[in-house]
Amino acid sequence: MSEYGYEHILYEVEEGVAKLTFNLPQYANAMDFQGVQETFDALMRAEDDSGAGAVLITGAGKAFCAGFNLKEIPDVEDGLEPIATHFRHLAHWWHQVFHRIVRMPKPVLSAVNGPAAGAGLGISLCSDMVVAGESASFLCAWHSIGLANDATTSYTLAKIVGFRRAMELMMTNRTLSAKEAEDWRIVNRVYPDTGLQAHAWNIARDLAAGPTHLQGMAKDSFHMGWRRSLEEATEFEIQNVMRSVDDPYFLDALKSFLSKDSRSNEVKVRLPDGV
Amino acid sequence: MSEYGYEHILYEVEEGVAKLTFNLPQYANAMDFQGVQETFDALMRAEDDSGAGAVLITGAGKAFCAGFNLKEIPDVEDGLEPIATHFRHLAHWWHQVFHRIVRMPKPVLSAVNGPAAGAGLGISLCSDMVVAGESASFLCAWHSIGLANDATTSYTLAKIVGFRRAMELMMTNRTLSAKEAEDWRIVNRVYPDTGLQAHAWNIARDLAAGPTHLQGMAKDSFHMGWRRSLEEATEFEIQNVMRSVDDPYFLDALKSFLSKDSRSNEVKVRLPDGV
Amino acid sequence: MSEYGYEHILYEVEEGVAKLTFNLPQYANAMDFQGVQETFDALMRAEDDSGAGAVLITGAGKAFCAGFNLKEIPDVEDGLEPIATHFRHLAHWWHQVFHRIVRMPKPVLSAVNGPAAGAGLGISLCSDMVVAGESASFLCAWHSIGLANDATTSYTLAKIVGFRRAMELMMTNRTLSAKEAEDWRIVNRVYPDTGLQAHAWNIARDLAAGPTHLQGMAKDSFHMGWRRSLEEATEFEIQNVMRSVDDPYFLDALKSFLSKDSRSNEVKVRLPDGV
Repeated sequence: MSEYGYEHILYEVEEGVAKLTFNLPQYANAMDFQGVQETFDALMRAEDDSGAGAVLITGAGKAFCAGFNLKEIPDVEDGLEPIATHFRHLAHWWHQVFHRIVRMPKPVLSAVNGPAAGAGLGISLCSDMVVAGESASFLCAWHSIGLANDATTSYTLAKIVGFRRAMELMMTNRTLSAKEAEDWRIVNRVYPDTGLQAHAWNIARDLAAGPTHLQGMAKDSFHMGWRRSLEEATEFEIQNVMRSVDDPYFLDALKSFLSKDSRSNEVKVRLPDGV
Repeated sequence: MSEYGYEHILYEVEEGVAKLTFNLPQYANAMDFQGVQETFDALMRAEDDSGAGAVLITGAGKAFCAGFNLKEIPDVEDGLEPIATHFRHLAHWWHQVFHRIVRMPKPVLSAVNGPAAGAGLGISLCSDMVVAGESASFLCAWHSIGLANDATTSYTLAKIVGFRRAMELMMTNRTLSAKEAEDWRIVNRVYPDTGLQAHAWNIARDLAAGPTHLQGMAKDSFHMGWRRSLEEATEFEIQNVMRSVDDPYFLDALKSFLSKDSRSNEVKVRLPDGV
Repeated sequence: MSEYGYEHILYEVEEGVAKLTFNLPQYANAMDFQGVQETFDALMRAEDDSGAGAVLITGAGKAFCAGFNLKEIPDVEDGLEPIATHFRHLAHWWHQVFHRIVRMPKPVLSAVNGPAAGAGLGISLCSDMVVAGESASFLCAWHSIGLANDATTSYTLAKIVGFRRAMELMMTNRTLSAKEAEDWRIVNRVYPDTGLQAHAWNIARDLAAGPTHLQGMAKDSFHMGWRRSLEEATEFEIQNVMRSVDDPYFLDALKSFLSKDSRSNEVKVRLPDGV
């Protein structure tokens, strides 16, 4: 058991990066109820932790996350009611996890190291940026098991891949390779499997070293911008600008920018070319 | 005259597929008032028909649909009033057609076999998936005849091709080839003209054999998701999950998935590679 | 000083094109307070001018627009208050400029001839179409100087490049080349630097010769369509159709279309292939 009492995930904060690892490799990291609650708890902790400037999510072993854990479903011979109860509670907690990723006022990077299916696909979709290893794969899975799509797919998928491909992915239940997912804009970069975790760590560390308050406002502005009129969007942009001017970071960055003798505040997040 | 009394379209239901064919090839399938009303009636019929699991829309002859039928416009020498009346009624009925395609709780596939112009372009845009023959083409047409764009273009076009290309297509009135329309994500696949109808039929049949209630919820969730907050979107996703758990299809799919000795509920929609 | 009293921009109307040129090349066209107010005034003038059918925005010299002018910021030694006041007023006026571009009921084309940074990037994002020279570049810049993103990026960026790339561009502050910006759909066409202004002028002239009222309705319909339900979107489409039928342009175009002996109303906007 870890320092936080987590048993089905790993969580550590180092060099400003809060790293969360799904850790049930024997189940392709399909999370059970406990694992989902631990994930929520760790994300709350990362949000609270002023020493964490970015969140990195990945999976132990050869899978990213295969969604929810089928082993935990009540016996089908006992009828529908206990199963329905199970899904209602499980869905509630899973979606608290997605909410925390999207509303986290810090960048969230997913490093998809293998299959991402169902809720695992949802984790990658609702992250801010995604890098993947060459053996990563992306799969809806819902319809094959008789379930409606959830995990933010109604909110994220069509905005990322467009309406046509959203329908195709869901209707055909096809599995996207890492390269296809990059072509579909689900993934920012694909790296060789052996280099994935090192690249992901470097990017997350760069993100963590950046201006968290500005990164958080950028992320929030993009999420809110879809549903705002032009004039409402720019009103909130100006409010953000004024908040950023009031932050000590600004005067510092401005002096450094004007003097040109130091570029300590320059953004230095590098996203290396992939394969 | 067909069994349903349709004269300007064809309509048949076979192997679970409700197939609707624009059938005024002498006018490049530019639909007249009667044809539009027949199309609306057939779509209502397809929605009602529990034996129809998917809708396939195509055109007879060498065109898909050239929009509305110019021959029917009142004589320009009689002045504007009868023409305005004509367009008001025609536009009302055309848009009832688009509404039924988008709100249909079943997948709608368009097989674009030739020019799709104006309202014909709109039919393809508001369908769920689109396959096209190599000689298909896509054209706005509105501005050349002095009309404002309609046919759901304000709702669908920018979401499918992006704002830049939506403006380009409308401002330049350029004609997109099938391959360009695929590159612009209007089309899922392009097939040789000679193979188009067979491919379209197979895909529609696969769609029809799938879980209609889940397909309908997926489609609806994507349409509604653009305008929902994250939290509202996931609330409705969870409600859909609970509805799907209550459906007999679920326990069946789950048992089959867990036993692994039968995959009868697995999604089997194949979208073959195109040219 | 020009005929309108502008000192930091150029403004002229010729062949139906209202051309606005940022003209502080010694500052890479980073606009000062006066220049931003002149830009707003010129856009209001272009909107009023019934002889102007399109707006063309470009930069003098080797830059498009480097955003706001750093030289004008109050001395950092005088503390935050005068700086905050400066930014509040400057941001207000800049955003009036973006509002006028988006709400202009005429097509707005940006010809990006060099770096477009910060508010300069915003000008290109909120234009209707964008052509660029090969040496154009696109840069967020905000975070490097400690400021929150504004300039319509919360409204335009994710809709144009998608959520993943919006986050990447803002988090990494990377500079996009002209060709990358075309690949990301920020730019419609890239031309050799030496041919850019001639191409831009021809396209703007073609746009200006088109049906302004229909172009304005198309643009407005795309902006409003993101946030409308299908049924609301088509209701306004039909209202636009009826307005267009009432316009004298329509009967003229219809007669010309039906007679086929003249195509005077045909849309003739050509967007030549780029490099």
